[in-house]
Amino acid sequence: MSKERRDSQAPTEDRLEGRNAVLEAINAGREINKLWVLESRDGKKPDQLLIRILKEAEKKRIPVIRAKREALDRISQTHNHQGVIAAVASHEYADVEDMIAAAEDKGRKPFFIVLDELKDGYNLGSVLRIADAAGVDGVIIPKHRSIGLDSVVAKASAGAIEYVPVARVTNIAATLRDLKDKHGFWVFGTDALGTTPYDNADYKGAIAIVIGSEGEGMRDIVRKECDFLLSIPMAGSVNSLNAAVAAGIVVFEAVKGRRG
Amino acid sequence: MSKERRDSQAPTEDRLEGRNAVLEAINAGREINKLWVLESRDGKKPDQLLIRILKEAEKKRIPVIRAKREALDRISQTHNHQGVIAAVASHEYADVEDMIAAAEDKGRKPFFIVLDELKDGYNLGSVLRIADAAGVDGVIIPKHRSIGLDSVVAKASAGAIEYVPVARVTNIAATLRDLKDKHGFWVFGTDALGTTPYDNADYKGAIAIVIGSEGEGMRDIVRKECDFLLSIPMAGSVNSLNAAVAAGIVVFEAVKGRRG
Repeated sequence: MSKERRDSQAPTEDRLEGRNAVLEAINAGREINKLWVLESRDGKKPDQLLIRILKEAEKKRIPVIRAKREALDRISQTHNHQGVIAAVASHEYADVEDMIAAAEDKGRKPFFIVLDELKDGYNLGSVLRIADAAGVDGVIIPKHRSIGLDSVVAKASAGAIEYVPVARVTNIAATLRDLKDKHGFWVFGTDALGTTPYDNADYKGAIAIVIGSEGEGMRDIVRKECDFLLSIPMAGSVNSLNAAVAAGIVVFEAVKGRRG
Repeated sequence: MSKERRDSQAPTEDRLEGRNAVLEAINAGREINKLWVLESRDGKKPDQLLIRILKEAEKKRIPVIRAKREALDRISQTHNHQGVIAAVASHEYADVEDMIAAAEDKGRKPFFIVLDELKDGYNLGSVLRIADAAGVDGVIIPKHRSIGLDSVVAKASAGAIEYVPVARVTNIAATLRDLKDKHGFWVFGTDALGTTPYDNADYKGAIAIVIGSEGEGMRDIVRKECDFLLSIPMAGSVNSLNAAVAAGIVVFEAVKGRRG
C-alpha cells in the first residue's frame, strides 16, 4: 500500500487485545491470523461480545485457540486482555500522498493531525479516537523516537485504529514543508508560546494541526514550520493539558470552523 | 477541612512519585513526611529538577532517604518514579458547600466538573489538569465505585492535584439535585444520547458538567438529573472519545461561553 511500509523494520505480526478491539478489527475486515480465547469455565456464561467474536471467527474461518488464563497473561502486552487476544497482520501504514488523494477524491480539503514525537501509547490511541470522531483525513507520526501502532495503542483507540489512516515519515519538519509548498496546506502548531487564540483561527482549506510531545511540546525545527502557533487560554496554576486533551480541544474547534 | 474527610476510610499517608509531581507538591506547600531519592551514581550529575527538590527538602527539613533503585521500585505504585518518591499526608478532600462558598467569595458563579464513576486514574489526572487550566472551581467524584486521589492520579495530573479542590460524595444524583434546588445550578451531561449541541448551550451562571465513566457513560439515575444532555457531533466510524478528551472539549467550550 505505501512506500513507507516496505522499508520499515516493523514486525509482520501484531497482537490485538480486549473484546472491543478484537471485534472492531473483525468488523473492519482486518486480516486475523489466529485468536486466543480464555477457556470457558463450567457454568459461566460467555458474554455477548465474546459470543459475537466467536461467531464471526467461525464465519471467517479464523483459527481459535482455547487457552488458560496463565497462557493469555503470558502473551498479553497490554495486561488487560479481557480473555481475548488476536494475532493480526501488522498494521499497514498509509502514505501521505495517498491520504491527500483520498480526501480530494471525496471532494474535501485534507485535514491532518501531525504528532511530533508523542511517547505515550494511551495518548496516541486517544488521538486516533479524536481523528475518527472528528472525521480527520489522516494522522502523521515520525518513524523514529515515537511509538508505533502497537497493541496498547490499538486498545486505547477503542477500534479507531482500524479506520484512521496513519502515515509514518522520516522527517516531520520536511513533511510539513512539503504539505505547505506542494499542497497548499496551512500548518497550525499548539504550543505554550502560541499567540493565535485557538478559537480565532481560520481552519478552512487544507490544514495540518501539529501536537507536540507530552513533556517538551514541539521541537524548534517543527515549530519553525508552523504558519500559526495556537494558544489555549489558561486560568490555573499548573496550566498544562494532557497532549490528547489539547488535541481534542483544538481539533474540535477546527471542525466547527470548517463547518461554518 | 471537610465532613466527607472525617468519616472516610482513606489511608493517612499517600505516595507521590516522579520529579514534577513531587516538586509541585513541595511548591504548593503540601506537607511531606519523607522523601526517598535514588542514590547518586559516581560521575553522574543529578538533574536540575532533582537538585531543586533536594534544596527545598533541606530548607523545609524534610527527611531524605537515599535508596537503591530496587528499593524505590518496590515501594513505587506508578512504576515510573523517576528516582523520587515522597510520603505525604493523605490528600484532603474538599466539601461541596465550601467549594461553592469559595467561588462566591471570589465573585464567581461556581463551575464544577462532576465525574460519574470514572475508573481510570490516568483519566482522572487529565481531568484535574483540565479543571486547573480552565479555572474550574472544583471537581466532584463519588466515594464508592470510583478511584480516589492516589499516586497514579497525582502523577497524571502533573501537579494540578495540588490546586484543584476535589470533593467526594456518597450519592452523585442527590448532590446534583442539591446543586440545582439549593444553589440554582444548571447541570449539563455529556452523553451519546445528547440532543443539545455542545457549542450551542448557555454555560453562564452556576454550572456543573457531568462526565460519565469510560465504558458505560452516565448512569440513568445521574442522566435524569441533567438539565441538558450535550452532544458532540461525530463524523467517523467508532465515534467514541476518551472521557478526559470529551471533558476537555466541553469544559473549554463552556469557558468560552462564560467569557463572552
